[in-house]
Amino acid sequence: MVSKQILEDIANSSAIRAMFVEGKALEAQVGAEHVYDFSLGNPCTPVPDAYTHALEEILASEDSLSLHGYMDNTGYPQVREAVAESLNRRFGTRFDAGNIIMTVGAAGAINVILKVLFDPGDELIVFAPYFTEYRNYCGNWRGVLSVVQPDYETFLPDFADFERKISPRTKAVMINNPVNPSGVLYSEQTIEKIAALLNKKQQEYGHEIYIISDEPYRELVFDGKTTPFLTKYYQNTFVTYSFSKSLSIPGDRIGYLVVSSEMADFETVFAGLAIANRITGFINAPALMQKAVARCLEERTDVEFYDKNRRFIYQALTRMGYSCVKPEGTFYLFVQSPEPEEQKFIEAAKKHHIILVNGTTFACPGYVRLAYCVPLERLERSLPAFEALAQEYGLRPQA
Amino acid sequence: MVSKQILEDIANSSAIRAMFVEGKALEAQVGAEHVYDFSLGNPCTPVPDAYTHALEEILASEDSLSLHGYMDNTGYPQVREAVAESLNRRFGTRFDAGNIIMTVGAAGAINVILKVLFDPGDELIVFAPYFTEYRNYCGNWRGVLSVVQPDYETFLPDFADFERKISPRTKAVMINNPVNPSGVLYSEQTIEKIAALLNKKQQEYGHEIYIISDEPYRELVFDGKTTPFLTKYYQNTFVTYSFSKSLSIPGDRIGYLVVSSEMADFETVFAGLAIANRITGFINAPALMQKAVARCLEERTDVEFYDKNRRFIYQALTRMGYSCVKPEGTFYLFVQSPEPEEQKFIEAAKKHHIILVNGTTFACPGYVRLAYCVPLERLERSLPAFEALAQEYGLRPQA
Repeated sequence: MVSKQILEDIANSSAIRAMFVEGKALEAQVGAEHVYDFSLGNPCTPVPDAYTHALEEILASEDSLSLHGYMDNTGYPQVREAVAESLNRRFGTRFDAGNIIMTVGAAGAINVILKVLFDPGDELIVFAPYFTEYRNYCGNWRGVLSVVQPDYETFLPDFADFERKISPRTKAVMINNPVNPSGVLYSEQTIEKIAALLNKKQQEYGHEIYIISDEPYRELVFDGKTTPFLTKYYQNTFVTYSFSKSLSIPGDRIGYLVVSSEMADFETVFAGLAIANRITGFINAPALMQKAVARCLEERTDVEFYDKNRRFIYQALTRMGYSCVKPEGTFYLFVQSPEPEEQKFIEAAKKHHIILVNGTTFACPGYVRLAYCVPLERLERSLPAFEALAQEYGLRPQA
Repeated sequence: MVSKQILEDIANSSAIRAMFVEGKALEAQVGAEHVYDFSLGNPCTPVPDAYTHALEEILASEDSLSLHGYMDNTGYPQVREAVAESLNRRFGTRFDAGNIIMTVGAAGAINVILKVLFDPGDELIVFAPYFTEYRNYCGNWRGVLSVVQPDYETFLPDFADFERKISPRTKAVMINNPVNPSGVLYSEQTIEKIAALLNKKQQEYGHEIYIISDEPYRELVFDGKTTPFLTKYYQNTFVTYSFSKSLSIPGDRIGYLVVSSEMADFETVFAGLAIANRITGFINAPALMQKAVARCLEERTDVEFYDKNRRFIYQALTRMGYSCVKPEGTFYLFVQSPEPEEQKFIEAAKKHHIILVNGTTFACPGYVRLAYCVPLERLERSLPAFEALAQEYGLRPQA
């Protein structure tokens, strides 16, 4: 007698998880070295030594009762101040501790924000292809998801569709920059275009439309590009961040959210967020991790590692005749399926021991996601399998 | 333009937080040594050295990428197995890893369970006085709270009222054993009585009614008593636990939930919980903390410390003529207000620099909560203030 919603969630979730499980079954059958599993977005670059040292030093030097004790639900003031200062240095913003709340990862941050904003029936706009959990987070707070189609040339939002989808019930727009699963980076120009449209619609409807900019891959951008910091372009902006990717610590559940000071009803919103962080059951971000990341704010993961993988697999697959969205960030490659139903392509790939995730999961049928956050050697080993698959589909090698 | 619900939450929350803030303001005015703040339930016994050593050893010995990486959303299988074995040793249960999910504290565990069980409008029964956050957790999942009155002699549930409150929409009953804020311990007999009534009602209504037994204070019981382990008395039982109190680590957000194997639709429920732990935004309990508590499962906080405080303050206040519920567990004393409106008593106490929390917060007007998880010396220093307050109310000292 569980809830109707969770029965739906179970049904959907098994479809998603299937690929990973099938990959494991295949490994048991033919040996892990003959399976090319690109299903999971797990960081694989080393955890910076600075993080381990920070944990060790904190454990050795701080009073344990206060170290592991409660603090304000928003997090340690010194940690929040350190995060604000780091953002100010890097992005020219003017935050202080009063703009920052430490959270249980970016997933925690997004849920806390949605809890504060959403009345049942309010709409959350997402841009396809989008990170599939946004649908679930929206459902937690009885919001309604509204999906904007991509421009299939650029994989940026189709702005005509975007404008159509903004309704009087639109409460927020979810941006994920750079984008999981496409690897596309929204430039300053794209952000300005989104902001202009939302400002127009705010005026038209006479109420706020918020941007939630989810940036767990913020530092994973290539070719010298940078991720625009959203509060500089739009007043009613939240930014959510996780250290999962930048420090390779997804299990530790530590991130933060930023609230723009220029936001309408800033005090009420901030008070709501502090309370929501508590009553959603997070209470506070893990105390020890807060103190540790505060000492590693300028640490970066090995972006060069992912970039090398990106260039290798993008070049190799496009040369074979696959059509791929050119990724500028994240550690994903979004490949067009050579046949319209990508599930069939995924099955064909699996026969060559290649494990991919279907685009339908990200509301973008006809594509598949390849997570290249794996040892380069696995990408290298997979090439003959990709070649054989390309031949099967009659893809023509490019010069 | 935040949600209607969060506006309500902000209004309620400020009333609760007021006492702590007023205590701090008073300290600034007259000096901390002249303020007797008993508002917060923060553990104050030392963190066991074993916990710190466990963290240090794990950091020194494990590969950092896998140590801080993702695991199954339910937690590390070895950690879950260790928790199961520890419970089996202590309570004669027969759990294995398949009954346990590691969670972000007990607050996380309760939210995950409610997410799995509740359709909007389903009812959650709580026994007054009850931990005030249960109302918020229930509200997260659009449940309706149904409050059962206490028997004011024993501070156990009023069973006639309990039976009346069980409706066709009753989905679950929340038990908190021992009880925050009364310190009362539900005996085996009480649990059996609750189980018998629920079994009858399950049959009558033809659907499951679940018990959620929230046991963060399980080990904080005195006089050689023990807390009955609920799965032994009722099939459809969840147990939620936090290491916050037993290891004095509330900031680290680590706990677990137990699902009875005898539960109806066990597989569906367990699958739902695993998914709910992810899509509520918790994802998984913090990885490092999971591994650390697994090495400290038999560690206990200094129960004797709290017991000494309990005996001291209970004796002192009852001798002065205050009427107190005799606490058998937790670190709270529930004192009857000498005047019907306890808020006036709280104001009077504040004039003597005593900071207490109103019973209305716990759905039990006419009482106040005193948290004695403070240095004994603060309790000792507070006695003249309590004496003066007793005289003001004309309380008669007892022999």
